[in-house]
Amino acid sequence: MNVQDTVVAMCQGARRAARLLATASSDTKNRCLCDAAERLRRQRAHLLDANREDVLRGGEAGLSSALLDRLTLTEARLDAMAKGLEAVAQLPDPVGETIAQWRRPNGLEIGQVRIPLGVVGVIYESRPNVTADAAALCLKAGNAAVLKGGSEALATNRAIAAVLSEAAAAAGLPGAAIQLIPTADRQAVQVLLKQSQYIDVIVPRGGESLIRAITESSSIPVIQHYAGVCHTFVDASADLTMAERICFNAKVQRPAVCNAMENMLVHQSVAAEFLPSMLRTLRAAGVEIRGCERTRQIVGDVTPATDEDWRTEYLDLILAVKVVDSLDAAIDFINTHGTGHSDAIVTRDYAHARRFQAEVDSAAVYVNASTRFTDGYEFGFGAEVGISTNRLHARGPMGLRELTTYKYVISGDGQIRE
Amino acid sequence: MNVQDTVVAMCQGARRAARLLATASSDTKNRCLCDAAERLRRQRAHLLDANREDVLRGGEAGLSSALLDRLTLTEARLDAMAKGLEAVAQLPDPVGETIAQWRRPNGLEIGQVRIPLGVVGVIYESRPNVTADAAALCLKAGNAAVLKGGSEALATNRAIAAVLSEAAAAAGLPGAAIQLIPTADRQAVQVLLKQSQYIDVIVPRGGESLIRAITESSSIPVIQHYAGVCHTFVDASADLTMAERICFNAKVQRPAVCNAMENMLVHQSVAAEFLPSMLRTLRAAGVEIRGCERTRQIVGDVTPATDEDWRTEYLDLILAVKVVDSLDAAIDFINTHGTGHSDAIVTRDYAHARRFQAEVDSAAVYVNASTRFTDGYEFGFGAEVGISTNRLHARGPMGLRELTTYKYVISGDGQIRE
Repeated sequence: MNVQDTVVAMCQGARRAARLLATASSDTKNRCLCDAAERLRRQRAHLLDANREDVLRGGEAGLSSALLDRLTLTEARLDAMAKGLEAVAQLPDPVGETIAQWRRPNGLEIGQVRIPLGVVGVIYESRPNVTADAAALCLKAGNAAVLKGGSEALATNRAIAAVLSEAAAAAGLPGAAIQLIPTADRQAVQVLLKQSQYIDVIVPRGGESLIRAITESSSIPVIQHYAGVCHTFVDASADLTMAERICFNAKVQRPAVCNAMENMLVHQSVAAEFLPSMLRTLRAAGVEIRGCERTRQIVGDVTPATDEDWRTEYLDLILAVKVVDSLDAAIDFINTHGTGHSDAIVTRDYAHARRFQAEVDSAAVYVNASTRFTDGYEFGFGAEVGISTNRLHARGPMGLRELTTYKYVISGDGQIRE
Repeated sequence: MNVQDTVVAMCQGARRAARLLATASSDTKNRCLCDAAERLRRQRAHLLDANREDVLRGGEAGLSSALLDRLTLTEARLDAMAKGLEAVAQLPDPVGETIAQWRRPNGLEIGQVRIPLGVVGVIYESRPNVTADAAALCLKAGNAAVLKGGSEALATNRAIAAVLSEAAAAAGLPGAAIQLIPTADRQAVQVLLKQSQYIDVIVPRGGESLIRAITESSSIPVIQHYAGVCHTFVDASADLTMAERICFNAKVQRPAVCNAMENMLVHQSVAAEFLPSMLRTLRAAGVEIRGCERTRQIVGDVTPATDEDWRTEYLDLILAVKVVDSLDAAIDFINTHGTGHSDAIVTRDYAHARRFQAEVDSAAVYVNASTRFTDGYEFGFGAEVGISTNRLHARGPMGLRELTTYKYVISGDGQIRE
């Protein structure tokens, strides 16, 4: 079969599998996940062999050592993967939850009930643990998964997906519940993105360019997780000690992630007091500072921030700093330069806290806390599918619920419409 | 300005307006809607004049009398439009509703709060009341609306939109909250569908071909409302008198709508008893019957149903009838031939009712009631934006809530991530 036919046949199989998965019990799904963990451990040698093949080929192809490290499986990473499957088995099943139920004057009882989305297409880059992770989340939410991983991890991903598919079959679920597109051919993605008849949603996991390219060519809805240009605004009334701890945490604790702070805004009335010590602490931690004119007047030796800086997701130990005139100016700046991801205010002013939360148009708006909490685990969802920057369907951290939709079940005793 | 620049400028204006609308109070929005109703009544003569222009031009262009009738405004239709605005003012405001709120072990308080979607693009065909109706629903849910109506109603739509925009400005809301693209140039739609930077969702209102064409060219998510090929399954244990009333209602009460029944399935064990009288009653009401082989053995003079028939949304007094072996066969048939809109079972069997509701994958699944209830008003939403056949974001009848999204507001007292 050519690529086109292979991918279409897989998507059709996924659609059929989804119908059976939709009514699978939580027990069956959990048994499948735990068994898959067991099988990953048991087939360790086989998986590590497959991975060595990928790593060898990657080395020959000149992959950077960082990429080779991401690609490499170890006993410990395999065990973490297995534990991840067991953790998903422990989570509550979102399917079947009654979201709302009410009775109409004519006696009709209407229930809005959570059901699986159907078929989820996951497109991701090199890290092979995503194969197990994404498949487990899809399966737990009752969805069939069609996975397309990076070509550099093909042998590893095929081996992992085969184990998961075996576990599905052993649990009495369709083997096609979890399928990996078994080719490095780039055309496969293009074919996949046109199967709107069989696939309900595409979840890309990777950098912004991957997501943009996928969105561009997809005729299926894509759940995007674009950049986070996150702000912290230190208000006039802020507890400056608290502000320093929060800003330091938001920038330094893990700078390479989308919920790390990129722009720090400081109210003019506290800038002279706050900035010298704050910037000293940040610099001591290796942070490079780029500042507005007023920042540079207060603290020496700061690189001027350009317009480009205010819109850049550094994902690195770099921070843009701006002194602003007022709460209004801060809100305006954030809504203009931010990406609607996560933004925080540090304040003691009740009215300012309320206005900031009401007027900043971001997925997560914080008062007196670090933006680093925007995360499915930190929110208590027990899992994370991604952090959506879409406005439709799901916004912010996505857990299992965000991989579901709903239907209305209506119970009557002969009602007809007049 | 050319069409491109005009449309882009309007979309930018809508985005700015949306930010202000998002925090407008319910009182302000309601005052605007009631004032708009008042203005529609006061400017009656002007609106009817504009409409006469459209009707005249439509007549010259050879529009059918049905289309001319849909296009024509009368005093009564204008009054209904004004009353519609007042009715939307009476509905509860979905914005600001707390969907969920919880506290994390570290003391962070996380609230999931309903907010407007942002900017909604509405593309619709000739009926000019949609201009007022769609604008009112968008405004009440805090969204800015960019409207593109049919070219045959351009003068009427412009006059109505101008009145609404004046009312917005008079209430202290941005006039750009409600804008109509003021041209019959078809290129305008193509430009609109590419403004994903400014427009959050496209809601098309019209026939399937319009929706398909829009979905094809849109880079913005589209809320689709495709065909309803709705089924009623008369089970072996059905109360046959109830079944007859429900099937008659589902087919005959208003055949031209998407929640009307198109296929009737009958369990083989009751087919001989049920079909003769049922089909006699339907035929007496002018319904043309197309049947499977077994139906034709029971009732004479029935046209054979083709494969095409089972998949056709007649929107007319035509019904396809099939005798099936079992509940499983009925569920299979519906999931294969239906469109996931509305499907019903008539049964006395508890287990069958439960299985039907669990296994039929449709937006609305009924037990012992007519499929005709799939409707925002009948569901108690107080309004109807449309009936979504999407699985993402909104499924089934859409009210005001379905024109919103959410954000997380997180309140802390200095929490940082370890």
